[in-house]
Amino acid sequence: MNYDNSNPFARILRGELPCIKVAETRTALAFMDLMPQADGHLLVVPKEAVAEIFELSDASTVACMRMTQKLAIAVRAALRPDGVFIGQFNGVAAGQTVPHVHFHVIPRWDGQPLRMHAREVADADTLEALAQRIRAYWRAD
Amino acid sequence: MNYDNSNPFARILRGELPCIKVAETRTALAFMDLMPQADGHLLVVPKEAVAEIFELSDASTVACMRMTQKLAIAVRAALRPDGVFIGQFNGVAAGQTVPHVHFHVIPRWDGQPLRMHAREVADADTLEALAQRIRAYWRAD
Repeated sequence: MNYDNSNPFARILRGELPCIKVAETRTALAFMDLMPQADGHLLVVPKEAVAEIFELSDASTVACMRMTQKLAIAVRAALRPDGVFIGQFNGVAAGQTVPHVHFHVIPRWDGQPLRMHAREVADADTLEALAQRIRAYWRAD
Repeated sequence: MNYDNSNPFARILRGELPCIKVAETRTALAFMDLMPQADGHLLVVPKEAVAEIFELSDASTVACMRMTQKLAIAVRAALRPDGVFIGQFNGVAAGQTVPHVHFHVIPRWDGQPLRMHAREVADADTLEALAQRIRAYWRAD
């Protein structure tokens, strides 16, 4: 998948599109997925402009994974799901829809199948309320 | 999910069960999934005895992610899939079946749905042949 500077995550990183931010470091940004597959679905993106993980620098890979782990811990503390799925898709064949590397953090509850990917936009107030609960457990390094 | 010292990955790490190894560092081990969801399905496990990512040390988290990324690159070079899925499941509700942290690296091909998880054991010679092709592209630090 080729990088495209007009992709929505690039636009969020440039401040051209809003996002419901949950965490930010010098290297990575986390925000609520607008079309969540479950309540509390987060995305972690590197600030580096790279489409797939194959090309991601070591510094960005490590920073994204550290943020992803810490957010998995925060999501678990905030929302008390039965499980947490972490996923990173490369290529359309793997389910990637936006050509900027991203890690999904998706809370899972027993007996609740995931909603379809990238299908329905969630209510902004609902997302903001979830983000507030998760932010309360986010600890920067 | 509680840690259980008799889980198959713990037994592989202790040398009590065989595995088709692809890569190993001081901190992490990668081997072929015996019940692959696609050809070339790999698992990366930390040597640290931890059930879920929430409790994994920073050193193990970083080491596993570095190995996972490098194996995604190796798998892509060796098998030329259309995409690569990276997944890390915590809790039965998220699809975890073995109580030792693991990262899935799964090549994806257009139009080929994943096979069911943990259902059918693959032929050992087939797995070894795939492992050989992937090892040829593995580069230790």
